[in-house]
Parts: sequence; C-alpha cells; structure tokens
Amino acid sequence: MTRIGIFGVTGRMGRAIGEAASAQGATVAGGLDREGRAHGGPATAAALAEASDVLVDFTAPDALAGHLDLALAAGKPILIGTTGLTPAHHQRIREAARRIAVLQTANTSIGINVLRYLVREAARRLGPDWDAEIVEMHHRHKLDTPSGTALLLGAAVNQGRGATSDDALNRFDRMQDGPHEREEGGVYYASLRGGSVAGDHEVIFAGEGERIELGHRAETRAVFATGAVRAALWLAGRPAGVYTMQDMLGLD
Amino acid sequence: MTRIGIFGVTGRMGRAIGEAASAQGATVAGGLDREGRAHGGPATAAALAEASDVLVDFTAPDALAGHLDLALAAGKPILIGTTGLTPAHHQRIREAARRIAVLQTANTSIGINVLRYLVREAARRLGPDWDAEIVEMHHRHKLDTPSGTALLLGAAVNQGRGATSDDALNRFDRMQDGPHEREEGGVYYASLRGGSVAGDHEVIFAGEGERIELGHRAETRAVFATGAVRAALWLAGRPAGVYTMQDMLGLD
Amino acid sequence: MTRIGIFGVTGRMGRAIGEAASAQGATVAGGLDREGRAHGGPATAAALAEASDVLVDFTAPDALAGHLDLALAAGKPILIGTTGLTPAHHQRIREAARRIAVLQTANTSIGINVLRYLVREAARRLGPDWDAEIVEMHHRHKLDTPSGTALLLGAAVNQGRGATSDDALNRFDRMQDGPHEREEGGVYYASLRGGSVAGDHEVIFAGEGERIELGHRAETRAVFATGAVRAALWLAGRPAGVYTMQDMLGLD
Amino acid sequence: MTRIGIFGVTGRMGRAIGEAASAQGATVAGGLDREGRAHGGPATAAALAEASDVLVDFTAPDALAGHLDLALAAGKPILIGTTGLTPAHHQRIREAARRIAVLQTANTSIGINVLRYLVREAARRLGPDWDAEIVEMHHRHKLDTPSGTALLLGAAVNQGRGATSDDALNRFDRMQDGPHEREEGGVYYASLRGGSVAGDHEVIFAGEGERIELGHRAETRAVFATGAVRAALWLAGRPAGVYTMQDMLGLD
Repeated sequence: MTRIGIFGVTGRMGRAIGEAASAQGATVAGGLDREGRAHGGPATAAALAEASDVLVDFTAPDALAGHLDLALAAGKPILIGTTGLTPAHHQRIREAARRIAVLQTANTSIGINVLRYLVREAARRLGPDWDAEIVEMHHRHKLDTPSGTALLLGAAVNQGRGATSDDALNRFDRMQDGPHEREEGGVYYASLRGGSVAGDHEVIFAGEGERIELGHRAETRAVFATGAVRAALWLAGRPAGVYTMQDMLGLD
Repeated sequence: MTRIGIFGVTGRMGRAIGEAASAQGATVAGGLDREGRAHGGPATAAALAEASDVLVDFTAPDALAGHLDLALAAGKPILIGTTGLTPAHHQRIREAARRIAVLQTANTSIGINVLRYLVREAARRLGPDWDAEIVEMHHRHKLDTPSGTALLLGAAVNQGRGATSDDALNRFDRMQDGPHEREEGGVYYASLRGGSVAGDHEVIFAGEGERIELGHRAETRAVFATGAVRAALWLAGRPAGVYTMQDMLGLD
Repeated sequence: MTRIGIFGVTGRMGRAIGEAASAQGATVAGGLDREGRAHGGPATAAALAEASDVLVDFTAPDALAGHLDLALAAGKPILIGTTGLTPAHHQRIREAARRIAVLQTANTSIGINVLRYLVREAARRLGPDWDAEIVEMHHRHKLDTPSGTALLLGAAVNQGRGATSDDALNRFDRMQDGPHEREEGGVYYASLRGGSVAGDHEVIFAGEGERIELGHRAETRAVFATGAVRAALWLAGRPAGVYTMQDMLGLD
Repeated sequence: MTRIGIFGVTGRMGRAIGEAASAQGATVAGGLDREGRAHGGPATAAALAEASDVLVDFTAPDALAGHLDLALAAGKPILIGTTGLTPAHHQRIREAARRIAVLQTANTSIGINVLRYLVREAARRLGPDWDAEIVEMHHRHKLDTPSGTALLLGAAVNQGRGATSDDALNRFDRMQDGPHEREEGGVYYASLRGGSVAGDHEVIFAGEGERIELGHRAETRAVFATGAVRAALWLAGRPAGVYTMQDMLGLD
C-alpha cells in the first residue's frame, strides 16, 4: 500500500487528499502543516519523508525549496500542486528532477487535463478560422479573473495553432474600448461569478455555420484531490525526471 | 388579408418582413426604401400609408417623425422597430399614440420577449441572494457589447427585484480592475463573439448549491421578421395607444 | 429560534436537515428514526411534537398517518416530504389540514419550484406550436426514468397549455417504435445517467427558428434540505390549511 | 479554378453545393439530376465527367455503380455523400479506388468530423469509468432516432475504448424496461426533436465529481455543403485510393 506524505496537511487540499487517498487504496504516512508542525505521523519533516513512498506539496511558493530538499535527502518523488511559482521555482524543480521524480501542475483534475489535450488538438485541426472563445464560471467568492485554468485552456488553443506567445493573442478587454471588431486569431476570455459553482469551463470554436463546444464541469472541489492522489500513486517509483499530468494520463 | 406597408423595405429586415408576411397569410402593400423611393406598390409615401392596414418602420431615428406623420395622416397603426431612439423620439411616439396605435420595440422576437417576462418573474421570486449573470454570443462582426437584448434582460432582472435604476447595478468591467469581490445585487454581463452565431442569450441565477438558467437561441435572424409580422397583424385594427410586444403576447 | 422536530432523523435527508437548520438560524428539537427511536431530543414522539414549533417528515408512506396524528395532538404544523403517496394519503392530509398547517411536496428545492412556475408560464404564453422537450441527467445509480421532477415539469407544461391530462400527452418512447413523426402537443422526455450528477433538468421549447431553454442544476443534494428548512420555518405559525412550496414562494 | 461536377444537382445538397463552390473559389462544371437530366453544363453524363476535375455524388444507393463507372471512364476522383450504402456498395467503392481517388462519408461537416476524432481520443484517455451519454436534437420532422451522426459518435467512443463491437454496447432503451442499473461500458443515446433545429450533438463523459462535455451545433444545413466542397477540392488531383474526411482533415 503506497504511503503518501503531505506537506500542507491541514489546508483544504491537504485534508481532501487524506480522504481521496483512502478511497484509492493508499495510506497517509503523515503530514506537516504550513508551520512545519506534524499531524498524524512522524514528528519531523525528515522522518516523514523517509516514511513516505511519495510526497505531495500544496503549500506556498516560499516553502518549495525546503520541501524539495527533504525529498532529495530521502530520495523520494514529489508532486508539486502549489500555485504562484516563479521562473526561479521552476529552475529549482528542474535541478531536483535530475535525482528524483517531480510532477508539477497547476490543476490536478483528470478531466481538465484531458480537456487541455482535446482543446489543443481541436485548435490544431480547425485552424484560426474558427474563433476561440473561453468562458468560465466559479463561485461568487473567487476574486481573480479569468481563472488560471481558463488561461491553461487558452494556452492549449495557441499551442495547437502553432502560436509562440499567449500574451500577443489573449484578449480580456472586450467591453473596455467601445465597439470594435474581433481580432483575427485572438483568444477571448469571459468570466462569470455566482453562487457556489465549483468550476465550469468551456472553449467554443465558432466557425461559419457551426460550432464546437468543449467543456468541463467540476461538481465538487474534491476532484482536484482525487486527481492529485492518482498522480501521486503514478509518480511513486518513477525514475528521476520532470513529469506532468499529461505524462501520467498518456497524453502526448 | 391584412396589408402591410414597409418603411425600409430594401434593408435586411424589410426584405425579411416581406417573406414572413406571405408565410403568415398577410400581403405587402408596398414599401419605401430609406431614400423614400417606392418599391412594389404605391409611388408615394402618402399613397402607401393609405393602401396599408398597418405600417412597419425599420429605418433610422431621424426618419421616425416623418413616418409617424404619414401614419397619423392616414390614421393607420404603426410598428416601430428602429433602434437608437432618444427620449425625444419616445415623446414623439407618445404624442402620436393619442390618435393611432403605436408599438415600439427593440427586439421583435417572440422568444426573447417571453424570456424577458420569465426573467423578471424569476428575479422577483428568487430575490437578490441569487446572483444574476448574463452571457450572450453573437457572430464575429457584431461590434457593440453587450448586446441591446442583454441589456433588456438585465433590466428585467432589476425590475423583478424592484430596483429603480439599471445604471447603479449593471457591471461590465469584471476583468478591468484586478481581483475584487462580486458586488451584492450587481447584474454582470459577459459577451462572446465568433463565427456566424445569430444570437444566444442566457441569464443565470446562481444560488447556494443550485442554479437556474434561462436561455434563448435564435437559429436565424428571420425570427425577428416573423415576430414583427405577428406584432403588425395584431396591431392592425387596435385603438389608439402605446403598445409593447408584452401586450401582444398577453404578458402582464 | 424556531425548533424543528424531524421524523426520519437518521436518514440522508434527516441528517442534512439538521445541518441546514443551524445554517438558517433554526434549532433541531430532536428526532425519531424510522423505527421510532429518539435521537438527540425528547424520548417519545409525543414529547418531541410538543417540544417542536414545526415538524418535518421524510420517512415512508405507511408512517404518514401516525405522524399526522402526532402533529394534530400537539397542534403543530408539519411539512411532508415523503414520496410515493397514494390518493388515500392525500385524503388523510386534507383532513388533518382542517386543524393544522400541512405542506406536502415531492421536491423541496427552491430552484426547482421556481422553475416549475416559469415553465408553466412559458407554456401558457408560447402555446403548443413550440415543441416541449424535457431532458434530465442524474448519477449512474438512479434507477427510475424519467425523474419524478421531470414529470412535475411536464405537468407544468401541460397545465400552462390548459391540457387536462398528462397521460394523454406524455411520451417516453421516442426510440421504441421505429421512425415516426413527432406528435403535436406531445411532451417528450429523455433521461441521461452517469457519474455523480446530483440532478440537472432542462425544458426546451423549440419554435420555428428559435428556442427557449429553461434549466436547473442541483450542484449538491444539500439544496433539498435547505429548501425543506426554509419551508418549515415559513410554515411555523401558519393557520390550518393545505400549503405548497408555491405558496411559500409566493408563486400564484 | 477547380471544376466540380454534381450528381444530384437538383436535390437540396446539390443546390447547396453549387452555392458553396462559388464561395470557395471553385466552379460548377454542370450537373445531372436523379433522372440523369443535365442542368447547366454538358448534356451527357460522360461529357460532364470529362469536363470536371472532381465529381460529387449525393443521390441514391442504386445510382452509385453507374456514377463510379463514369468516374472510372473519365479517370476523375469522386466524393460519395450518398447514405444508406450496403456492404456491396462499399466493395464496389474499394474496387473503383484501385484506379481513382474515392472519398466516402456519411457526414461532410468539418466540425462533426473533428468532433469524432476528439471523442475517440477522449474515450481512449478517460477509459470506461467515465460513463458515455450521447444526446442529439433535430427539427420536428426528422423521423429516425438516434441520428446517424450520433451513431458515428458512439462508434468513436467504442473505438477509443478499444471495443470491437458497437452493437454489444449501444443502448437505446433506457425508458423501456422499468427501473434498472446503468450497464458498465454501455453507450446510451437520447434523442430530442422539435422546431427547426439543424442539428445539435453532445457526448457527455460523466466521471466521479466531474464531467467532460463535447458538443457540436450546426446552425444551418449549409455547413454540410461547405464541407463537401472543401473535401472535393482536396480530393481533386489525389492519387487512386480510398479516402475519408479524417484524411482530408489530417486526423490520424
């Protein structure tokens, strides 16, 4: 039975990962909260790393380096779900990945990661004549717009079309500048907020006389923990290297 | 067989009204283009008004006064579908309506007008705890955002909630000011543009754990002509007064 | 603070009502399970009824008569959410309602009850030329098709159209009899099952060139408890009579 | 400028192909109606084939052999959009394809063919734990259920899952046999009919806590002619062989 060690065990994702682990036949080796206090396992970070087959990190960017060092010292694979990473963090991940397996991702849901693949492939086949519009809805308390996942989907559109830069093509300002034409090749975003929606995303490719609509609905935020545990179980025992959710799902 | 006289007969709506009239068992008495030239009927505007049971006007705001005068002189009802009217135009309409029947509307589709009614009733029953979001999609060449019809639907939300001002509650700027909380009671708009979409509108009421979604899809712009003819046939023979699509549809 | 007594307190709905009550500022006076055992309150059914301001019943049809007698003896209002009732049960409810307030409903969600009202009003205004199609999706384990709520929505269509019988117009067999024409005035049902969907319903009115789509999404089954508590709080203190969710929501 | 010869030129698709050809910079060499009469080009079938760079056939199965013979005699590629073909017809196509290029398809829309590809890839990655439901809506006069395109999408699900037989897995009878469990690995179909809908299709993959929804909307039946012309232009000049819409779109 695979043992998972959790950095950020008292956070929302950390607790959800505990539940998801037992549902998937894994066990929780223990965890540390953001202040480094042990919960339900070995008393020290080093002992936790030793007692785990794989580590998961859902904390904050400034804790990343320490968690990678613990994983390196114990020679254990680590899944990084922390968001807000800078290029320096990604460089640090690449260095660690020479000696251990590291999977970093901004979204651990299986469905969203399959959707990213489908969106990229759709964009590749349809070409820029099909206008790409991305619309997402989340609960009323989500502050940032558009969602990070919407940006991932937009990046998939651009990648599928062979574009080299998201920034040059992303458009967030449809209502700002008065009446104006849609820009060719632009990827436009719209955000809805309300109620308790866990997260809906849709990419619309609108052609002449027909539309393709590719969407995902998260019914509950538990799906992110489910995907994280599935990825962690897949990561346990992998050789050193940088991995993605796409690798785990066999998406080239 | 009711005879319809068309101001703006060579425009897109004018031509579509001709087709819709015959489909509904009416006949076209003739028409004038925007320059006042006669097409397929009496040679003068006054003769056209005399030869018609009801007039329809899909031209431009500055032609409104002249068309109302023609209708008044002939004592014939008139449907005004011209958009972009100012308070002065509406005042002119009210004056004419003392002596003839006048129906003015920014959207002649049956479906949209029923939806407005449903949205108002939904807002009234649900109250402001259900966040209202309005999203619309139109073809890539539509310049203005949001659509005028989206604003009508937003006004229906505010009316149902007993709000006195749309301006105080409408929000078009979700992505402009960086992360921020959804405002209580705000009605938020999102616009999508792409391909050849004739016009989709959806009002989402998002509550705690559940959503109500009220939408309309126009498959073709012909529905606006169909509704205009139906309204014109209803208007023929009415006594003097100001009428709305809601009156025609029996929506209180 | 209103005190709610729960018949069926250990069932899924009973437990959820406990949580919903505290979220809405009410308190649980106690409860009885289906075998009549007390949980967390007075030890006997009669004492529970006395200690409550309003009773709710989510048990089984054969327990209904006993629960009504308890409510009558204590002179307390009662909300009946038990499903599968027969005409005899409804007769029993009408008799009890001469002396106490009784609200009986097959669906306690606020959103679904508002949707029923909107669907009826839409059908009334649109008339039978707009084809009515009802599609619902639930989780993979739901056995019955279509859902009881879909049938309520279909009844709302028929009521709005002035039809006297659902049976004569409901159609569940589109794929059974080989190619055939859609029947005029028929209300057709389609059911989808999969995953963990809590419950989506949509009524589509399809006209010539346009569609109206009226839908509801339950994100979680907790919304049924939320609505039950809201209805119970509304019912407490009402005079004797038969009430519906429509009464509570001010839907005529 | 590529010249297209049309078998079935007076049918709905034949006329639409004429319009689509000029929109795409091609020209119509002429056409024959189903009775073999020439319209707007060479007076005989043989002369039409000679005068064309590529032939398209939207007629009836029993005319297929004659049209293939004409294409063979003239050495011209041919697109077959006729539906209702039997294995004998397909054998005849394979024989002709030894000497000329032949593209046969049951659906010429670009969007639907891209969607088929995406559905197959989604099914492959998600596996059978994600329940597959297919729902389609067409206008009230469409008799057959489910649509042929829905069956193509279902075949794509089964192909992606590695299933060898559609028949063993397709389910059309959800409402027929009383309450029953969803079958594992089953592909379930639902059909809606109403109004004037040109054709909507959606494949829902419903997992635990999340859904992927892959859909297509045809706003007008003109998209089928647009896709047919694009395929014909691609086919002109190809070497002998059997081709599909997937080949034309670069979908492996």
